[in-house]
Amino acid sequence: MATINRNYLKLPGSYLFSTIAKKVSEYSTQNPNAQIIRLGIGDVTLPLAPSVIRALHGAVDEMGQEATFKGYAPDLGYEFLRSAIADKDFKARGCDISADEIFVSDGAKGDCSNIQEIFGLDNTIAVCDPVYPVYVDSNVMAGRTGDYDPEAERFKGVIYMPCTQENGFLPELPREVPDLIYLCFPNNPTGAVMKKNELQKWVDYANEHGSIILYDAAYESYISEEDVPHSIYECDGARSCAIELRSFSKTAGFTGVRLGFTVIPKDLEAGGEKLWPLWARRHGTKYNGAPYIIQRAGEAIYTEEGRREVQEQIAYYMGNARVILEGLKSAGYEAFGGVNAPYIWLKAPNGMTSWEFFDYLLKEANVVGTPGSGFGPSGEHYFRLTAFGNREKTIEAIERIKKL
Amino acid sequence: MATINRNYLKLPGSYLFSTIAKKVSEYSTQNPNAQIIRLGIGDVTLPLAPSVIRALHGAVDEMGQEATFKGYAPDLGYEFLRSAIADKDFKARGCDISADEIFVSDGAKGDCSNIQEIFGLDNTIAVCDPVYPVYVDSNVMAGRTGDYDPEAERFKGVIYMPCTQENGFLPELPREVPDLIYLCFPNNPTGAVMKKNELQKWVDYANEHGSIILYDAAYESYISEEDVPHSIYECDGARSCAIELRSFSKTAGFTGVRLGFTVIPKDLEAGGEKLWPLWARRHGTKYNGAPYIIQRAGEAIYTEEGRREVQEQIAYYMGNARVILEGLKSAGYEAFGGVNAPYIWLKAPNGMTSWEFFDYLLKEANVVGTPGSGFGPSGEHYFRLTAFGNREKTIEAIERIKKL
Repeated sequence: MATINRNYLKLPGSYLFSTIAKKVSEYSTQNPNAQIIRLGIGDVTLPLAPSVIRALHGAVDEMGQEATFKGYAPDLGYEFLRSAIADKDFKARGCDISADEIFVSDGAKGDCSNIQEIFGLDNTIAVCDPVYPVYVDSNVMAGRTGDYDPEAERFKGVIYMPCTQENGFLPELPREVPDLIYLCFPNNPTGAVMKKNELQKWVDYANEHGSIILYDAAYESYISEEDVPHSIYECDGARSCAIELRSFSKTAGFTGVRLGFTVIPKDLEAGGEKLWPLWARRHGTKYNGAPYIIQRAGEAIYTEEGRREVQEQIAYYMGNARVILEGLKSAGYEAFGGVNAPYIWLKAPNGMTSWEFFDYLLKEANVVGTPGSGFGPSGEHYFRLTAFGNREKTIEAIERIKKL
Repeated sequence: MATINRNYLKLPGSYLFSTIAKKVSEYSTQNPNAQIIRLGIGDVTLPLAPSVIRALHGAVDEMGQEATFKGYAPDLGYEFLRSAIADKDFKARGCDISADEIFVSDGAKGDCSNIQEIFGLDNTIAVCDPVYPVYVDSNVMAGRTGDYDPEAERFKGVIYMPCTQENGFLPELPREVPDLIYLCFPNNPTGAVMKKNELQKWVDYANEHGSIILYDAAYESYISEEDVPHSIYECDGARSCAIELRSFSKTAGFTGVRLGFTVIPKDLEAGGEKLWPLWARRHGTKYNGAPYIIQRAGEAIYTEEGRREVQEQIAYYMGNARVILEGLKSAGYEAFGGVNAPYIWLKAPNGMTSWEFFDYLLKEANVVGTPGSGFGPSGEHYFRLTAFGNREKTIEAIERIKKL
């Protein structure tokens, strides 16, 4: 008799954003006139850049002609895109990454959750707390964790690294050595960043202990300050301990377009075995490449014009971030992030829990944010707002919050 | 210290089509003037239908305007596409499948390889022999099989169901009861089909034993004969034992566009646990939806005009299939399939092995096909040709074969 993967049953409740969507939907139904402003989910709102639209139309035309039609894409992605990525995202920053170390995919969420598959089930993972839920949940599903402990609000067998106001929302090197270390900087949800010398400590730690760092750099294009690394490969020795995951979602508004990539240095090993061939095998067996037209759209952001256009979009969102950060501060909130990241991490007032503040904000200001506790117990009493709304609505939301 | 998933090391050599590509590339380099005709890989060659191109352009324009821009897609896929699928692919054929039982994805290859994840690792799988390699390889990677036995050319712990000339290339109900049964009809690679009464026996068998059938219907639109089911849900009781996997790749030439879907009835259970919520959870956690513009392209093939256009493409390919099948037969080959499927399965002449015939055909006729043994030991001495080439080249390829 067929049976299910019982690891799935360890996952408590539903996915964070589904719960939020349900609550908002219920509130909307009961209050049909409420003008709800969503600063919760990390979804972009600006339309695709003109260069991207042109590239899409051009590629669609190619798909309509026999001479230029494209079928199955190459396993790793088209050379034109992998070369652009290697040159502009890595070599231009002094990172020694070549085009054939880039694996193009349909986005970082899939890569983040699939990458664990090439590692042994007995590997222990370390994650920040709070953390983007996908890192942990994908490991739960694979059976790499113990049961969920509802009291601790944590899975057994996972090393959680608290990121709190006390440590500036930066994790400390774990005493119990993990095999796999998930790091995301600029951070979702806190908006914190690691300076290069701080990230170097993690690279040295991983090399010393034979750990692999899974570095999620999905928000690197929001970095505004000097000395904040855009790639982990800016650190010495990262090629021998780190995989980097990148996304076009926040860089170029591709949340509904789906494009991302993973970098695996050819010489990177775990336990004496190279990782590149394993991920290549996984791509070849379980994936069929990102659509041609979308890889062409991705290529467009590496042209001079495309780059300028997406930088304008990022500047717009970071203008929102300033509105939120400064507005919250002027209203007496403790607020963090928002300088090198599109996320603002604020402390709920008057000792409210994250979900209490969620309900309060939804009801009193008709503003939707994300409860910090949804990202882990150290996120309790915190709340995430995102800079991806439109400017007017963001201003309006902050005005409403100020008036509370 | 991090270690790898050692199950990956069980996989012998590289993926079938990568090996073929390498051989062809080597031959081309050595024989730069050879006019190679590729009837090997199952990739389409006709450009996208005009309705699809129009839908793509229209959706791209929407993505370029703030008012119509789309970010993250709904987890299961857009309602407009799921409804079209439920109505036209299922309800129109009398199958009781609703829109919320359709999970839209970026293609059947991913779904085929990911679906095993929601089942326990101790489930045994049964596959046809020969078989599309992805079913087995994805289970090997997950650790659901034993080691590869090079002598038997099979993985230990997998139930292989030989499909031979003797049984008309249709598997027999296995005596050792499997938990998960992969079936693909119309079949890749043999082109064989199951009549409805035959498939009904499998549904009854699965219901009797609590097995789940994973039914790959990627080639259903090539069915030309009556009494051949397009969906397993045409059989009584399939809702309680079957998951169906579908693709737009061969129906509408989407190999480079990437769109497919999986059907999981809401009441389908394995070991008393519902499967729908598990796959929904997987989608929500590890996947971010197919791109909006591509879901709109998929919708276009369900319009009257779009349907007519893709049926013309299928008729064109099936014209190729007739050319191949009749040509081979007139040249004295034993050849099968090609009537309800875009695949022709032929027996290599003079006792040649599949790879010997591959090399012979590449060298003597500059025609590339796929060695049957690459699909499993029962495929030895067989060879697959596909109908996806262009007409002239297909005719030319068959003329060359006839002259050998």
